Amino acid sequence: MVNGYKIRTDLALEARESVGEANGEMRGVEIEESYSEKAEVKMTKVIIHTKNAARDLGKPMGTYITLEAPAMLEADEDYHREISELMARELDDIIPNSEKEQAVLVVGLGNREVTADALGPNVVDNLFITRHVILEYGKAAYNRTKMNLVSSIVPGVMAATGMETAEIVKGVVEQTRPDVVIVIDALAARSTKRLNRTIQITNTGIHPGSGVGNHRNALTKESLGVPVIAIGVPTVVDAATIVSDALEKAPYSGEEPKVFAELNNMYVTSKDIDATIKRLSFMISEAINIALDGEFEEDKV
Amino acid sequence: MVNGYKIRTDLALEARESVGEANGEMRGVEIEESYSEKAEVKMTKVIIHTKNAARDLGKPMGTYITLEAPAMLEADEDYHREISELMARELDDIIPNSEKEQAVLVVGLGNREVTADALGPNVVDNLFITRHVILEYGKAAYNRTKMNLVSSIVPGVMAATGMETAEIVKGVVEQTRPDVVIVIDALAARSTKRLNRTIQITNTGIHPGSGVGNHRNALTKESLGVPVIAIGVPTVVDAATIVSDALEKAPYSGEEPKVFAELNNMYVTSKDIDATIKRLSFMISEAINIALDGEFEEDKV
Amino acid sequence: MVNGYKIRTDLALEARESVGEANGEMRGVEIEESYSEKAEVKMTKVIIHTKNAARDLGKPMGTYITLEAPAMLEADEDYHREISELMARELDDIIPNSEKEQAVLVVGLGNREVTADALGPNVVDNLFITRHVILEYGKAAYNRTKMNLVSSIVPGVMAATGMETAEIVKGVVEQTRPDVVIVIDALAARSTKRLNRTIQITNTGIHPGSGVGNHRNALTKESLGVPVIAIGVPTVVDAATIVSDALEKAPYSGEEPKVFAELNNMYVTSKDIDATIKRLSFMISEAINIALDGEFEEDKV
Amino acid sequence: MVNGYKIRTDLALEARESVGEANGEMRGVEIEESYSEKAEVKMTKVIIHTKNAARDLGKPMGTYITLEAPAMLEADEDYHREISELMARELDDIIPNSEKEQAVLVVGLGNREVTADALGPNVVDNLFITRHVILEYGKAAYNRTKMNLVSSIVPGVMAATGMETAEIVKGVVEQTRPDVVIVIDALAARSTKRLNRTIQITNTGIHPGSGVGNHRNALTKESLGVPVIAIGVPTVVDAATIVSDALEKAPYSGEEPKVFAELNNMYVTSKDIDATIKRLSFMISEAINIALDGEFEEDKV
Repeated sequence: MVNGYKIRTDLALEARESVGEANGEMRGVEIEESYSEKAEVKMTKVIIHTKNAARDLGKPMGTYITLEAPAMLEADEDYHREISELMARELDDIIPNSEKEQAVLVVGLGNREVTADALGPNVVDNLFITRHVILEYGKAAYNRTKMNLVSSIVPGVMAATGMETAEIVKGVVEQTRPDVVIVIDALAARSTKRLNRTIQITNTGIHPGSGVGNHRNALTKESLGVPVIAIGVPTVVDAATIVSDALEKAPYSGEEPKVFAELNNMYVTSKDIDATIKRLSFMISEAINIALDGEFEEDKV
Repeated sequence: MVNGYKIRTDLALEARESVGEANGEMRGVEIEESYSEKAEVKMTKVIIHTKNAARDLGKPMGTYITLEAPAMLEADEDYHREISELMARELDDIIPNSEKEQAVLVVGLGNREVTADALGPNVVDNLFITRHVILEYGKAAYNRTKMNLVSSIVPGVMAATGMETAEIVKGVVEQTRPDVVIVIDALAARSTKRLNRTIQITNTGIHPGSGVGNHRNALTKESLGVPVIAIGVPTVVDAATIVSDALEKAPYSGEEPKVFAELNNMYVTSKDIDATIKRLSFMISEAINIALDGEFEEDKV
Repeated sequence: MVNGYKIRTDLALEARESVGEANGEMRGVEIEESYSEKAEVKMTKVIIHTKNAARDLGKPMGTYITLEAPAMLEADEDYHREISELMARELDDIIPNSEKEQAVLVVGLGNREVTADALGPNVVDNLFITRHVILEYGKAAYNRTKMNLVSSIVPGVMAATGMETAEIVKGVVEQTRPDVVIVIDALAARSTKRLNRTIQITNTGIHPGSGVGNHRNALTKESLGVPVIAIGVPTVVDAATIVSDALEKAPYSGEEPKVFAELNNMYVTSKDIDATIKRLSFMISEAINIALDGEFEEDKV
Repeated sequence: MVNGYKIRTDLALEARESVGEANGEMRGVEIEESYSEKAEVKMTKVIIHTKNAARDLGKPMGTYITLEAPAMLEADEDYHREISELMARELDDIIPNSEKEQAVLVVGLGNREVTADALGPNVVDNLFITRHVILEYGKAAYNRTKMNLVSSIVPGVMAATGMETAEIVKGVVEQTRPDVVIVIDALAARSTKRLNRTIQITNTGIHPGSGVGNHRNALTKESLGVPVIAIGVPTVVDAATIVSDALEKAPYSGEEPKVFAELNNMYVTSKDIDATIKRLSFMISEAINIALDGEFEEDKV
């Protein structure tokens, strides 16, 4: 909280930084850090083990993997395949029973019409969808003996559908009975420094009230009945948060600035957000394609 | 059937023409024709009363209203509001209990990425969606005492989702419990002469195997549990059908042309299909907006 | 200037406010204000008469008409036709020789892929284009004896084309020789309070360095050889500007916050920017369609 | 000519087949055929050496390279990079002075809003554009001593711009002075058998009256003043042509079918045209990116 305004962040990493010393230990929270030279990615795994820690951080209990890759900000001839591969391994780890063949529903949240919010729909556009083919022709259609059934949905935003995202996803899950749901969403960060270069993977799903706040009801194991893995990239910062942060760094005495009211419903994003979203969404869809391809698991054995 | 190829048509009007004399009577089928001078629209209502007639026509029992408006082919300053109004009245007639406030789910079938198949998604883009506002703030948000709850979904095509359209719609219907479902789809006609200038409204829903054939399972009262009104405009003709028709008109002796195999999976559409779809979809969304606006019914009293 | 950061604004109205008393007089600057009850629009006309005033305001000599309409922020059944009509009259006034038939090239600046920057391309999508028809079939094709030749171009952004917008527009102007060019662009405002509710019309064209800064070279009478009318709506605010403003209102002592560096290349926009751009672009394209329709001028006689 | 209807084709290969024996020799026409095992591509080079041959074939004098790759019809994990590489080599051969650094303008013809006609705009979307960077920062920005200046334009269609494509391209060429122009366009084939699996590369540019017929004026060395390489893929067949062909194969006696009039302004395309265009355009943009990358030429030495 700064000046009465709640700090809005979808990143567990930022939540942790905001409550205590970034390098200190916190009861009930386990942290692992590693660095991949090849992919130039710093990986931080935050595991929230206790309810107390969850309350303190404002994040549900579970695992949060954060990949920070400054290279994601830049174009690359091969769209950073090495980051996709690293991400695929993390996905494979966090998806329950990923060693077995299973049915996976990928949900692309967000608004295709708003560039900074189009990450989810764009990721889904490049997925390798197999469910309908396998159900009709069998795995033989792909010359494979083992293959995941992959399906996807872009539910759209409430202003366009008149329905909660959770209503739509729940309906689809009940009809098609996937073993696991993967949800992709653009996130809100607390500061611009992690924008567009950080990927968060968590097994806690999507929770109401966090992030940009357009998706009201939860998409979690509790609400959907199956494990929910959420993949997010911060692409915007709340405008009010940026001003709060600036004011905090340059303390002032006296009244709270009226600028906050005007900033309500405004967000900050980067000028090249179109190229960024295109690059990020391709990278994530490739990571999911690699992770869900049955050969991936066998390769590891 | 011509030369062993089944005539593909989604229009009851064409089905009727293909089985008998266009002007003759057919047992179990009731036909009404009328003409609106103002809107320059010819309206034909085909009611299939018996199972025998349904079997002969290859169409389920029910009511099929066809509006033929050559003016739809041309641009108009006011997007043919008179046709939208006429269509709204027909919708109001065919929607059960339309005099009472109700919850309506509009489903935009088809593929946004294929111009001729984008009618459904485009219609949905211009609808006046109210459900989420009324559920949260009440009808007072619109200064109204009576108002329909309108929601919408664009389920996407099976190649993109890996799911049957019917699975998605059924899931959404079970979660959100609308009183009636309106489905919009681009249709296949038998000949080019009705392309882009004909609207069919029916209370029989959408059936597998008819039309372009990408939507496999039924969207009907039987499958969804609520009445299903389908609105369709023929925007394509099967390529094989066009050749069949040409050959039938110019009879030949001997072997069946090999051209048919090549034409499999091909369709015929008009060169200005982008402008046509834009115009048609706006016209239909306005018709739905007028029909579902509570004031419309009161005005009629 | 605040804290060493230049205030970025494309609005003459804001430029004037930032240099002096909003209600005071300024040498070489003429100001007229009026209010339309019907359209609920406040109109301010700023005419910069002298080079000194131009230098002080950081805006070229010429006429700047600003329409402020809070209603533009809200949806309307009829897309605010009354604002389009008022705007059409102002366009008609500022376009030289608009009483005579002429050739008009409309240029839609900006990036179709970035929602807040897509105003120009979207306006052009809804224009009534006549040049090719009149050149081929004559005005008789429209049953008219007098009709403007309207053409349009969406040049795209430099990152996509590798060319300056001005190079493309200049080339097209030299080949097709219009009598006047109308340029549409999304602007940057100084504060969020004018965002999406203000339209600026000017006869000074587009100048390098002002606004979001992606369009480097000028589109002016000097550079193109024909009068250039620019229509703009502020849809973004520079992120650094917003922080500057907040800090100015809450004065601090000491160092300049480091937040500015991070904010470089970031902008602030509203969460419902997709619906806003859709509404605004339709309103502006209708205004241009009305203004360029030959009948408009005759009606006035 | 069949039944008075001119056979419409943009492919030199088809033009040649339609005038004589496919395997026979034709005066003034040189033909080379080869097959790449690796890329599974059949390549045919047709060189029209004389005016007489040009007249007989209805194609201007010059070189026409046709790559036929059935694999293009299918999805591939790596988007058929081997075809892009083969195509890059052919482009490198046909572009004059490609061993020297030069400025290249790529023109994406067609209509982004019509799936089958969106090839040109989609190819341009994935090009590596360098001109603006090199002009501002030099080749050092890419850590290179030798690099082509690549720019691009999507002129749009006449119905949207009111201008001939040739007017726009000519204007841009005169302003930016490229050394060579590469034009990408969707073509019309004579039969469905070459649809979406054939790429034609020619040094004769684009000619009025051939192909789908929307681009009226020529884009050639004569009209633009610099060499023009055209890359095309047949994505549609004229509906009338398909019927003509069917009738020719199944000869009939008597009157010409009336169906032709109805088929005017109609075309045939495949049902999965969206996925096809996406795949083809990526393959072609990669081929151009490889061909225009300075390292390519050095590698060959």
